[in-house]
Amino acid sequence: MSDELWQSSCTRVAGAARLDIGGAAIEDAVCAMWWSILVEPGDAALGYVEALCGRRDGLLALFRSTSPQEFSYRLHAHTRPMAGASSAREESRVLSAAWSRWEPRIDGALFHRAVASAESMSMAVVVPGDRWPASLDDLTVHRPACLWVRGNAAMVRAASGNSVAIVGARAATGYGEHCAMEIAGGLAHRGITVVSGGAYGIDGAAHRAALAMDGPTIAVLAGGADRLYPSGHEQLFRQIIDRGAVVSEAPPGTAPTRWRFLQRNRNIASLANATVVVEAGVRSGSLNTAHHALTLGRPLGAVPGPITSSASRGCHGLLRDAGAVCVTSVDDVCALASLDDAVVGVLPEVAGADARRGGPLGGGTDASRRPQQTRILDVLNTRKPLAVAEIARLAGMEPAAVMAVIGDLDAEGSAESRSGGWVRAG
Amino acid sequence: MSDELWQSSCTRVAGAARLDIGGAAIEDAVCAMWWSILVEPGDAALGYVEALCGRRDGLLALFRSTSPQEFSYRLHAHTRPMAGASSAREESRVLSAAWSRWEPRIDGALFHRAVASAESMSMAVVVPGDRWPASLDDLTVHRPACLWVRGNAAMVRAASGNSVAIVGARAATGYGEHCAMEIAGGLAHRGITVVSGGAYGIDGAAHRAALAMDGPTIAVLAGGADRLYPSGHEQLFRQIIDRGAVVSEAPPGTAPTRWRFLQRNRNIASLANATVVVEAGVRSGSLNTAHHALTLGRPLGAVPGPITSSASRGCHGLLRDAGAVCVTSVDDVCALASLDDAVVGVLPEVAGADARRGGPLGGGTDASRRPQQTRILDVLNTRKPLAVAEIARLAGMEPAAVMAVIGDLDAEGSAESRSGGWVRAG
Repeated sequence: MSDELWQSSCTRVAGAARLDIGGAAIEDAVCAMWWSILVEPGDAALGYVEALCGRRDGLLALFRSTSPQEFSYRLHAHTRPMAGASSAREESRVLSAAWSRWEPRIDGALFHRAVASAESMSMAVVVPGDRWPASLDDLTVHRPACLWVRGNAAMVRAASGNSVAIVGARAATGYGEHCAMEIAGGLAHRGITVVSGGAYGIDGAAHRAALAMDGPTIAVLAGGADRLYPSGHEQLFRQIIDRGAVVSEAPPGTAPTRWRFLQRNRNIASLANATVVVEAGVRSGSLNTAHHALTLGRPLGAVPGPITSSASRGCHGLLRDAGAVCVTSVDDVCALASLDDAVVGVLPEVAGADARRGGPLGGGTDASRRPQQTRILDVLNTRKPLAVAEIARLAGMEPAAVMAVIGDLDAEGSAESRSGGWVRAG
Repeated sequence: MSDELWQSSCTRVAGAARLDIGGAAIEDAVCAMWWSILVEPGDAALGYVEALCGRRDGLLALFRSTSPQEFSYRLHAHTRPMAGASSAREESRVLSAAWSRWEPRIDGALFHRAVASAESMSMAVVVPGDRWPASLDDLTVHRPACLWVRGNAAMVRAASGNSVAIVGARAATGYGEHCAMEIAGGLAHRGITVVSGGAYGIDGAAHRAALAMDGPTIAVLAGGADRLYPSGHEQLFRQIIDRGAVVSEAPPGTAPTRWRFLQRNRNIASLANATVVVEAGVRSGSLNTAHHALTLGRPLGAVPGPITSSASRGCHGLLRDAGAVCVTSVDDVCALASLDDAVVGVLPEVAGADARRGGPLGGGTDASRRPQQTRILDVLNTRKPLAVAEIARLAGMEPAAVMAVIGDLDAEGSAESRSGGWVRAG
């Protein structure tokens, strides 16, 4: 029966005219879709099997095995070492356990339903090697089996290396949504893809701002891409499908469970060059996305807010304890994501864009002026001319130093010579 | 005439009954006061002279010399090497230049006026070795000659090792003043000295909150302690003198010039364990204080605010580019200043005090719960009992793993056994 399942699956996909598998081989697409059905997101054992013998042989071994021992035995027939297993016994244990998780889901009806649903919605299936965003490979053994995409599949690959994840609390404040829109709008205006989770609050504001700028945006879902969750964002999702992409690693029909939200967050962090948390309470799920970004070694930014706002506490925690970078403008975010040169046009006004003139320790006019000039100007007045010796005494400087500097002040128009002394220029 | 000046100065101080020199020797007090008159704040040459021959011999050499060459020659009679000079020629150049700065201020009338003013206001003169806050010695050659103190001189020494500088913009917002008051009030309540500059805005809010808590506070001025600048804070300064201390390194009669403000900032940063910038625009003078804290290797904190507020841009710059720590509560500030154990009572409610429950990456209930438990609860419902095999299939887990964990869920009351299956506990 098992080889028959493989054959019928291949036949089904070959005949699915409205399922877009791009340039992928039928067999690769079938493997990717089957594995996305069999494993829960983040199941490292799939990565082990891939390393051991590849997806196709691993899948056929699973189909052909009637016990965990048999599955382990069949895979051991292959000679490549299994990454992550410390010994043969450990390897056998991991594979047997995986069989126990995966075997109950070997059901041709599941596969056919997923394909039918994907066809009916004109989905694309993006598999490793074809239109695949390389940035996802940093997830190593936790890499998704495939991506089910509604909308622009090419945009998904284009996001790899040119995108920023903008995430945050569902319970966002007006301030948080404003910040999300300013930053996401600025990124989209520069042609940088805005990746988020399609949730209420910060996520929704980020997607909307990107769409408003006619910029690229991708919503990564926890459940199947056929279920646009949350349903209150139905209209927003429709716009994203029209002009961007809605993506999930879970096959159509999959419910968005809590576990899958946590795993979905790893895809958001992995897809983007950098992750920015705009507003987050201390229990916000977006902190989990931040954690994935750090684990992946990707830059993490956090937008500060009033310390009196509980909606910013999670961001402040990231700044204080997790090494997140304080970002206050789209320029900051681009620098964080190493996308500084992505400027494609004039930016709309973004809060804080000119915040860094003179650097963080500029310290105002006084500090940037040369010390001796400051000290001389401190003692000059606009009425009574002072001799160099008097200036020197009042400023606590050598007369020679006063003479050396006062010419500069004269030249720049800050001081002028009068009646044999010096006055501050009016 | 020079030794006469020294003698008359000593006689004057010995007879100044209302000038508090603590346990210091008359000669040490005279030296300290003279040097504070002769040098502008931050003049490193005083530190060089001290290292070369001590304050007294250096002062007498200055009084006795009629040319820079003579001053340099007299000091070379001493054998100790001068710190910071790379060669004998460089040393001679530095000393000659110093003579040119200092000699014009050798005027007995200046000294007598300063002592008279200090007496009339019952000032204390705090000199190195007596009631001296050791933390100032980190300024090395830039150490002040002495401190002229109005109010509680003992509080100044007590601040060394148990104080925090709270500084910020004069043009503060209501938000910034609120934050300054919450943090300064909390510190004062714990017996930690609040050091600031007595300016409008953040400084004033910090002093007021400390006074309101009956806590210790010190205002460090740029001009003489006889001139309470800004004059609009006259009443506040009176309260600080009554219950804290107003301090300056400049002698009475000194005007608060821009140069002296910048040097005053080094004293604020040096006196305190840590410096916290509460609110600062990009040109705020408090960024100069932050710079001094970093130069001294002291912890620097910054309070974040809305990125839409220009009054917080300087703080955000410190967080992003200068390595400042994000502080949102008095607990954060105490941790920053290594004063965690200074709790002396119950704190008033402070914004953000409970912000860290679960850590910055807690990620809510989902992430803190063990993954397998989350996945099982995801698939259970409250009505239809599910068999272990069914749970395993839906959750993508091994049946053995489900059996291992479901008992824990039963024990904690999240799941219960019913009709041979399991349901989520209502």
